[in-house]
Amino acid sequence: MGVGKREQHFREGNGVFTSPENRYSDSEELAEYEKLSDQVKISEEALRADGFGENPFYHCFVAELLPAGREPQGPCLAVGYGLYYFIYSTWKGRSVYLEDIYVKPEYRGQGIGSKLIKKVAEAALERGCSQLRLAVLDWNERAMDLYKALGARDLTEAEGWHSFRFEEKAMRELAGK
Amino acid sequence: MGVGKREQHFREGNGVFTSPENRYSDSEELAEYEKLSDQVKISEEALRADGFGENPFYHCFVAELLPAGREPQGPCLAVGYGLYYFIYSTWKGRSVYLEDIYVKPEYRGQGIGSKLIKKVAEAALERGCSQLRLAVLDWNERAMDLYKALGARDLTEAEGWHSFRFEEKAMRELAGK
Repeated sequence: MGVGKREQHFREGNGVFTSPENRYSDSEELAEYEKLSDQVKISEEALRADGFGENPFYHCFVAELLPAGREPQGPCLAVGYGLYYFIYSTWKGRSVYLEDIYVKPEYRGQGIGSKLIKKVAEAALERGCSQLRLAVLDWNERAMDLYKALGARDLTEAEGWHSFRFEEKAMRELAGK
Repeated sequence: MGVGKREQHFREGNGVFTSPENRYSDSEELAEYEKLSDQVKISEEALRADGFGENPFYHCFVAELLPAGREPQGPCLAVGYGLYYFIYSTWKGRSVYLEDIYVKPEYRGQGIGSKLIKKVAEAALERGCSQLRLAVLDWNERAMDLYKALGARDLTEAEGWHSFRFEEKAMRELAGK
């Protein structure tokens, strides 16, 4: 592409992750990588609406590559993202949940994922959070090894936690609607 | 106690779950029940502060018993609670997480837990949420059976999701603080 050496840069932003043209496709790529593409049921418009406003439903860091020595101006090459929100534990108080973390395949192995987690940990500490939770699929050993190497604990393995989900249909039946 | 027949009632509230004198001890009881009491690291003051304000970190339904035919006025007999907050999925949009659900041992088997989940499902649908997630310990078969009977799916079993957690120490090391 003739752009010369590029540096990693991490930008905070909401609303389809700062630069709309790339981000929505990133969350689709993640679903494809996790072999759960059939579960993508959201529109770009909804993602955008829920990420803006005074009380956005989520927050995001975007990993971008930009020409060495330059400050980010305008669109950069987005290569990954970490999407998180604030949760709560009655035992430990304010906490953060890292819902998505994704680095495009051709940019893996450069420490971008670790740096995204580090940025989220910093944001969590700034807001007085005492834990950072996330979920990973058991076949994704590369990710599991990374999280453990960075100091996380596998609570499903250690304590036996199972994740359950009610889909909309089950919720409507429960609520009689 | 000579109070006559009591009816189930479900009250919505934040800030140590509407009536302060009982609720904090409820979250301690839950930790004891889950054999994870050593993990309770929060003060009642922090719980109270985080549950109030314009953007509370959590929401709660309290199950109360009150004399038959009466509207709730003042303190009632609180017998359980369901504590939840809003989360986000880039695949499915707005979602709810049921962080705690607890019914005092002597009031189990009366459908109070199911009704708490139903109230949370109603609140979720009202806010346009498409899923309700929660976590349960693998030895708690009674709870697992209940959630499945109500229509939930065990995602750890079905898809292999594992929960990971970074504690504060690991977060500080990551953030270099």
